[in-house]
Amino acid sequence: MSKFALGVDFGTLSARALVVETGTGRELGEAVMDYPHGVMDKALPNGAPLPPDWALQHPADYLECLRRIVPEALAKAGADPADVVGVGVDATACTLIPVNRAGTPLCMLPEWEGEKHAYAKLWKHHAGQAQADRMTQVAKERGEAFLPLYGGKISSEWLFPKLWQTLEEAPAVYEAADRFIDASDWIVFQLTGREVRSSCMAGYKALWSKRDGYPSEDYFRALDPRLEHVVRDKLPGPVWPVCARVGGISEAGAALTGLLPGTTVAVGSTDAHVAPPAAGITEPGRLLMILGTSTVHLVMDGEARFVPGICGVVEDGITPGLFGYEAGQTCVGDHFDWFVKTLAPESYAREAAARGLNLHALLTEKAARLAPGESGLLALDWWNGNRSVLVDADLTGLMLGMTLATRPEEIYRALIEATAFGTRLILENFESHGLAIRDVVACGGIARKNAFLMQLYADVTGREIRVARSAQTPALGAAMMGAVAAGKAGGGFDTIGQAAARMGGVQGAPYRPDPAARAVYDRLYAEYKRLHDWFGRGGDDVMKRLKAVKLDARR
Amino acid sequence: MSKFALGVDFGTLSARALVVETGTGRELGEAVMDYPHGVMDKALPNGAPLPPDWALQHPADYLECLRRIVPEALAKAGADPADVVGVGVDATACTLIPVNRAGTPLCMLPEWEGEKHAYAKLWKHHAGQAQADRMTQVAKERGEAFLPLYGGKISSEWLFPKLWQTLEEAPAVYEAADRFIDASDWIVFQLTGREVRSSCMAGYKALWSKRDGYPSEDYFRALDPRLEHVVRDKLPGPVWPVCARVGGISEAGAALTGLLPGTTVAVGSTDAHVAPPAAGITEPGRLLMILGTSTVHLVMDGEARFVPGICGVVEDGITPGLFGYEAGQTCVGDHFDWFVKTLAPESYAREAAARGLNLHALLTEKAARLAPGESGLLALDWWNGNRSVLVDADLTGLMLGMTLATRPEEIYRALIEATAFGTRLILENFESHGLAIRDVVACGGIARKNAFLMQLYADVTGREIRVARSAQTPALGAAMMGAVAAGKAGGGFDTIGQAAARMGGVQGAPYRPDPAARAVYDRLYAEYKRLHDWFGRGGDDVMKRLKAVKLDARR
Repeated sequence: MSKFALGVDFGTLSARALVVETGTGRELGEAVMDYPHGVMDKALPNGAPLPPDWALQHPADYLECLRRIVPEALAKAGADPADVVGVGVDATACTLIPVNRAGTPLCMLPEWEGEKHAYAKLWKHHAGQAQADRMTQVAKERGEAFLPLYGGKISSEWLFPKLWQTLEEAPAVYEAADRFIDASDWIVFQLTGREVRSSCMAGYKALWSKRDGYPSEDYFRALDPRLEHVVRDKLPGPVWPVCARVGGISEAGAALTGLLPGTTVAVGSTDAHVAPPAAGITEPGRLLMILGTSTVHLVMDGEARFVPGICGVVEDGITPGLFGYEAGQTCVGDHFDWFVKTLAPESYAREAAARGLNLHALLTEKAARLAPGESGLLALDWWNGNRSVLVDADLTGLMLGMTLATRPEEIYRALIEATAFGTRLILENFESHGLAIRDVVACGGIARKNAFLMQLYADVTGREIRVARSAQTPALGAAMMGAVAAGKAGGGFDTIGQAAARMGGVQGAPYRPDPAARAVYDRLYAEYKRLHDWFGRGGDDVMKRLKAVKLDARR
Repeated sequence: MSKFALGVDFGTLSARALVVETGTGRELGEAVMDYPHGVMDKALPNGAPLPPDWALQHPADYLECLRRIVPEALAKAGADPADVVGVGVDATACTLIPVNRAGTPLCMLPEWEGEKHAYAKLWKHHAGQAQADRMTQVAKERGEAFLPLYGGKISSEWLFPKLWQTLEEAPAVYEAADRFIDASDWIVFQLTGREVRSSCMAGYKALWSKRDGYPSEDYFRALDPRLEHVVRDKLPGPVWPVCARVGGISEAGAALTGLLPGTTVAVGSTDAHVAPPAAGITEPGRLLMILGTSTVHLVMDGEARFVPGICGVVEDGITPGLFGYEAGQTCVGDHFDWFVKTLAPESYAREAAARGLNLHALLTEKAARLAPGESGLLALDWWNGNRSVLVDADLTGLMLGMTLATRPEEIYRALIEATAFGTRLILENFESHGLAIRDVVACGGIARKNAFLMQLYADVTGREIRVARSAQTPALGAAMMGAVAAGKAGGGFDTIGQAAARMGGVQGAPYRPDPAARAVYDRLYAEYKRLHDWFGRGGDDVMKRLKAVKLDARR
């Protein structure tokens, strides 16, 4: 008789529930719901306008989604709640909620509903940039040991900049908040009545490590005396590894979802970090690329190593017992979208419309007819700065090789090639710092839809690349976490490796490098790497000087 | 009572006759005619196809135009041919015609009309590139003193590569040709019955100098033993300075044009080199920019100086008694056209159509709203290689500073700025080699039509820039040559300076550099210059390596 695991994935715009058969990985029931409030980046629900760089969510939406999509997915799967062995939850992170002593988000209390700082600050809320910059600066000055593990730079997307922004701009909210909690931990709390913090979010988003904990009170005092005891006062509770069992579904959780009380719920995680097991990756040496508007690279290892230019390395960050390494490219799908929106010529728009194609499909078709190197173009993929391995948001795009005969599809292809060169450089950076990569798997919309791009990545990196079987790697990964939290005795699995063997994996044949294309790309990559180092490591800081001129001009 | 001079300008697609009042410079009558055969770059008149890079003209078209437009211009001006004191002719160059002993172009003889080498090879006939390259190579190996005066590189647009190509590919045509002659010298010959060669074409297009003559027979023998006596055998006749009187209109010339027999005709010149006097420039230190698809920079000096990276320096090349220096940018109007044709997005095309603008006008309007430096972009204007000052056709375009917010008008403006930086570098190159530039004048379609670009050039170069008064600088310049050839005694002028004072000059107020814009551009120019030297002088030869990859890929 079938057993099931349930994964619930809270994305940027919608939540998705997925019922998966534990013995086979078959995805039997799925339900999706957009958040009623969406992303609030212009105004609060009462119409009060928001400043630039703000992005909020309403935590009530998470509950509303749970109420709707969990029963719907179970019904579609024909799954009896009694056969659900475990539940996993992932969400975007850091999406930070201030809550009162009872755990109720402040924005859900009438007295705070008009206060923007009382809402969940979504991962892409960048209005705490000033706080992030000061955190980096102070950490550098003090020589904080945690900083190099995060590529030397603290992002405004992480926990403490958001928390500090609240303290600085709305001290009353800060005071009223009994604690601050990341979205997936809060959702797990709603389901179980038990509040724990995930090693994944604590590690990647809150500067925590299993060995050293959070940054010291000295560091926080140096930032702002009011922050000295921030961890003790505002982030209480244990940090647990992913895949651990938080507890069973509470009566309230059961009433909300239709799941049975006592059903196992796993520690929460993020939408990126649950994906590797869904792609079958639970051991060292296998890298997952999540290809979207940007790209995340995740790989695990038994050791903590210093790898420059990554986004973070966290013990138990992806799976229990291993160090999870994260790197990233800031501009991938966004790169191609920029070109299509900004520079696709009228004649191509007409051709695409006449043939019922979108412009990406048309440009891909034309680009695919070119031979590697034929365009004579080369680009640096820095239209949105560079995360890995240079960790420098002030870098900008570069392209060279243009002639009067250069065509749009040649530029489009050069932009794709640039992201592939960036990926190769990240892989080589891992390997040269002791993390052998023996296998590469891709997931995300681009990986499933764009065979031309995937083949090009194989040719550029010189590696076989497989594609994850599931189109819903986050929800599947979350379901697997639930199955592992249940344990074999509870109808699930004792290890994430066992769960991945049954439930995760890849599809079809790998993309294999073409030797002739690879040889050409080796020549082009040598050029890319030299330009990358010249403009990225101080050979010529022209991009930064141009940015300074630009800032002066816009003053 | 008014006296007139007549200028006839033979361009690429049409010929223009202009009747000018000598005492005032007033342009009283003008007539234009397209060449019946146009530019033949696909097929001969009999339909025989032409290979790539070929571009021919039919010399019969020149006569047909003379027959039509000279009487028409005189009639429009209400000018009595008896009041025409002198005639000047300019044409594109080197546009090379093989003629028989009588001076008849071979292509006008029935036995040769099916032979492509029997036609006039137009200035932009590039099919002699192999010959040009070998000429450069051999000149380098032999350390020929003339080579540095031409920027170290012989162009396929010049005389000897065209002549040598004829010898190599059609020895019978070469044999049958009593001599080879540039178009404007041939037209002067048709008008007067006297054949002389102009110092302008001989100097800029045929490696001739007043002091050393043509290259040595040793050099030609090293190229090809059959070329040893090429100058004696195929280029006979004296080289005369511009503005000299060749003779009077012959009976045949009078029958052709309606001019009176005996009317003074000046030595021919090229469409570029007649322009400075029309813009009022006849003395050292004043530079003319002719802005078109590409840009030509002309300046004169009393001395022969070595200036690296120019196209040529010729005594009596522009006006008698001075050394004329020519430099050039290969990609100016072409640069902007490439962008509009290749990358102007559909939404802009729609906006332009709705507002009845062309895309250049729309992009210029949007670009003009930006502040200098605001885009953060910087480009190297090498989409068609670099003529001055690097003399390197293998260089290619570069742009950097792009972000996901970069808009089309920012790129368009950056391309304009790049050409302005290139101009500034050429001006500074002249000055650092002893040619002080105290004044800059512009002519050509862009100079008259695009005030935004002109202001930007003033801001970038930090110089006042004036615009030539006449829209027809070549035809006006040719008319002035005719007036000088006539002399004061003949109703004209004794010097080109006197002619320029009456007939040439500039219009309106100059474009004056804006100090604030100039300060920003000084910062950007420093970046341009460093990138220019890095990629253009061997710091990183990535462009050449990419070109090699491209050639391999297209093999």
